Amino acid sequence: MISVEEARGRILAGLRSSGTETVGLSDAWNRVLAAPVAARLTQPPADVSAMDGYAVRAADATEGAWLRVTGSAPAGHPFAGGVGAGEAVRIFTGGLVPEGADGILLQEDAEAAEGRVLVRETVQPGRWIRRAGLDFKAGETLVAPGRRLTARDIGLAAAGNHPWLAVHRRPRIGILATGDEIVLPGEPLPPGGIVSSNAHALAALVRAAGAEPLVLPIARDDLAAIGAAAEAARFCDLLVTTGGASVGEHDLVQQALGPHGFTLDFWKIAMRPGKPLIWGRLGETPLLGLPGNPVSALVCGVIFLWPALAVLSGLPPAPPPLRRAVAGANLPENDRREDYLRARLRQEPDGQWVATAANRQDSSMLRVLAENGALLRRAPHAPPLAAGEPVEVVVLADLGL
Amino acid sequence: MISVEEARGRILAGLRSSGTETVGLSDAWNRVLAAPVAARLTQPPADVSAMDGYAVRAADATEGAWLRVTGSAPAGHPFAGGVGAGEAVRIFTGGLVPEGADGILLQEDAEAAEGRVLVRETVQPGRWIRRAGLDFKAGETLVAPGRRLTARDIGLAAAGNHPWLAVHRRPRIGILATGDEIVLPGEPLPPGGIVSSNAHALAALVRAAGAEPLVLPIARDDLAAIGAAAEAARFCDLLVTTGGASVGEHDLVQQALGPHGFTLDFWKIAMRPGKPLIWGRLGETPLLGLPGNPVSALVCGVIFLWPALAVLSGLPPAPPPLRRAVAGANLPENDRREDYLRARLRQEPDGQWVATAANRQDSSMLRVLAENGALLRRAPHAPPLAAGEPVEVVVLADLGL
Repeated sequence: MISVEEARGRILAGLRSSGTETVGLSDAWNRVLAAPVAARLTQPPADVSAMDGYAVRAADATEGAWLRVTGSAPAGHPFAGGVGAGEAVRIFTGGLVPEGADGILLQEDAEAAEGRVLVRETVQPGRWIRRAGLDFKAGETLVAPGRRLTARDIGLAAAGNHPWLAVHRRPRIGILATGDEIVLPGEPLPPGGIVSSNAHALAALVRAAGAEPLVLPIARDDLAAIGAAAEAARFCDLLVTTGGASVGEHDLVQQALGPHGFTLDFWKIAMRPGKPLIWGRLGETPLLGLPGNPVSALVCGVIFLWPALAVLSGLPPAPPPLRRAVAGANLPENDRREDYLRARLRQEPDGQWVATAANRQDSSMLRVLAENGALLRRAPHAPPLAAGEPVEVVVLADLGL
Repeated sequence: MISVEEARGRILAGLRSSGTETVGLSDAWNRVLAAPVAARLTQPPADVSAMDGYAVRAADATEGAWLRVTGSAPAGHPFAGGVGAGEAVRIFTGGLVPEGADGILLQEDAEAAEGRVLVRETVQPGRWIRRAGLDFKAGETLVAPGRRLTARDIGLAAAGNHPWLAVHRRPRIGILATGDEIVLPGEPLPPGGIVSSNAHALAALVRAAGAEPLVLPIARDDLAAIGAAAEAARFCDLLVTTGGASVGEHDLVQQALGPHGFTLDFWKIAMRPGKPLIWGRLGETPLLGLPGNPVSALVCGVIFLWPALAVLSGLPPAPPPLRRAVAGANLPENDRREDYLRARLRQEPDGQWVATAANRQDSSMLRVLAENGALLRRAPHAPPLAAGEPVEVVVLADLGL
């Protein structure tokens, strides 16, 4: 049995980011940028007004002075001439400040009358002018590669004049559920049968991570069936199996895949839920074998598959984000397996997050997991812990899970 | 000028959730559930083993006893007979516990030998048996409507035997950018022109909220052009405009839409960035007019459009989630406008989040917004605040923004 950290380290070290594709800006949200976005222009391109009012020479625009209005400079329609002594040009937010002007008389500080304007408040030089390049200058990097693009990044790339972006291809993840007892939802259910939930929950996890799931037909507990289904791995960046990973006679995945070129790295980790976890390679394709119990499959999905999907997507290797909270109840000493307790998270009026582990932690209880949105991490051999002491939690909603 | 809270309240009160559609389970992740998902079966359907081992009568299975192995019960293949006195049936995780058995002899506590098994550790009655209905019982509600479906919910709906789910239709949001000065990224840029960023950033925000953006062609600052584009509103659940919402002569949206049946609710709010904000109705279609400055457009998008999209999507009305943090630097007294400062958020080793406002808060500086992932809220007339005192922030990454 190896530790969670070592297992995750070995998994992430065995993965490379997927290749690059070009997408239109309107398709780039939430994709991972593959090449830097540099500004193709300076923004604003020249000095512009930050307000509606009049472009003036500040020296002339003292309280009580009258200025002659010689033209207008709305945004997008630069004024052809300049501003001379005693002159003013009507200007609007975003309009280019004409040659000669060095200040803005605000609309609310001006009184317009037949081609002239009265200054009601002395203008400060430079005030209400946005200088050329205030936001960014041509050539500057606006968004760095390796970042999952937010709405703000999309806006910034647009402002930098980019209609196309280079992003990492969405990794394609094969999902193979195995087991004689499982059937698809809505299909005829034989005696002793169980409706398949792992493949669908994991496909949703894959989508939440921005990757593309390929749900393979369920493989019976039969060497040939598993072997044949595994051929699908050739089309995948990663093959995920569920079930068939422990030590009983009916755990066939390893046995079935051997003849197909499977090389095992490890298959047992010191974690609860989820001791049986397979990591290896099927030919060229990395293979992650998750346990068959629904809670174990999904928790191992969060702890191992989620970071793996991030690396395949072009993000830096990292564990799932942990938030700090305090325990809502006493917790017993832990054994040598790192434990992820299903827990409910709530925020106290003082802002403190409190995580309280569910009473039942059986790894078949999917509903307990659905109703408890946090995983409370207990380190191997952690001593007993009293209510109110600090703990670390993975907040599943943070990950769209 | 009305308050942020009143403005948001009026907007949300004017919206209804979109209709319902049926989607396959594999398309339902992140959609908002429109009808309860009730379990169509009991899980597990009968008592099953939680471990690999032997189903036995506990009374017989005392340390040192030998039991006769009469059959096998892997998951999905129930054993036809029962377990009589002195008998054991080989069983695997998830296998149905045969009639007569009331305990599980774990594999690691057993020694198998030619049709018999030696008990190495006395079996406790009921131990390692998952009772019928441990996870859920037929008819119980597994997922309640009005919830955005997580990967866990998808797994639970699958386990409850649902191949289809009723979800709210994705609201379709028209986005109309107006202005003579703006052009699409990559298109020829005239003197004084600015590349359009608002529509693309807002489209990404709409996607992040699970809705469907319809980016309309840019409308020139011309009554007829704006009016014609607004006809597109008939196909939308909400029309969002950007630009043209303030008081200058060149602010045309309200004027242009009047003849098309526009009724105004309000158009000025006590907020920074973003004083000019239009809310009204264009015929049947709600219309939200955002300011033209990129930062104002996006911040107003977070504060007003985001909650509006949630309501249209079938979620309960709520402001964007605020997280508690402490100020990283002193903040001056605030005036009567609620302020959303662009701020950087970091976590201290003790778990405390610290939000530090950016030095420059000009509403044209998109890069400052892209690089500062939090909006620090300052209430109207808030007194000066010292570094280390509590503040509230909207964390844009929490929203995919």
